[in-house]
Amino acid sequence: MQSKTSGDNGWPEHYYAVIFTAQRSLSGDDIYDITADRMVALAQQQRGFLGVESVRGDDGIGITVSYWTDRDAIAEWRQHAEHLAAQALGRQEFYDWYRVRIAEVVREHAFVSDQVVGIGETM
Amino acid sequence: MQSKTSGDNGWPEHYYAVIFTAQRSLSGDDIYDITADRMVALAQQQRGFLGVESVRGDDGIGITVSYWTDRDAIAEWRQHAEHLAAQALGRQEFYDWYRVRIAEVVREHAFVSDQVVGIGETM
Repeated sequence: MQSKTSGDNGWPEHYYAVIFTAQRSLSGDDIYDITADRMVALAQQQRGFLGVESVRGDDGIGITVSYWTDRDAIAEWRQHAEHLAAQALGRQEFYDWYRVRIAEVVREHAFVSDQVVGIGETM
Repeated sequence: MQSKTSGDNGWPEHYYAVIFTAQRSLSGDDIYDITADRMVALAQQQRGFLGVESVRGDDGIGITVSYWTDRDAIAEWRQHAEHLAAQALGRQEFYDWYRVRIAEVVREHAFVSDQVVGIGETM
């Protein structure tokens, strides 16, 4: 998981999450992996990007949650030319289905075990 | 993934997501699996529950997103006696760390491939 979330104190009080849930199709993994990695790298360069958490299970279902400072930043990223091309590829090749939800984070809390050192802190 | 999301049209226009990201510890899987399954079954019985999506990767990092009609329902579920016991077990045994974010869904869209039949529809 690529994440800046645990123990990261630099985030604004108000921010947004984009919850992307998807079922991978049976198409080849190579182009998907390259595209997915590129999109994460590109997202990180966009204005308003805060972090991303992504997990895929053995059944091909994945959840990626990216975090952004504001909705304009999310809209700009959605319209980024290279991202638009990747979205089209996603619909044509990568996914049986996906769903995107934009949500405003209104509360959060965290826990870190005493037995874990150096990865973060409770809020 | 246990989900009522794809193509489900019965959800309210406004609702909330609880984004739970966590790192599993090295503790035994049996009690964890029983507890996690029980919590999903119990959550589904609570007022305001809409659906849940959950994925865990090979590295033990998981994302579970549950969906609720309102924040009161989320607060009630958080305070449910059996859920409180499971949360304590989670901190003692199951997780190195976790983070919970409550977020208000403000926009969503979906895609379903033409090649997939019967699992849902685009919004």
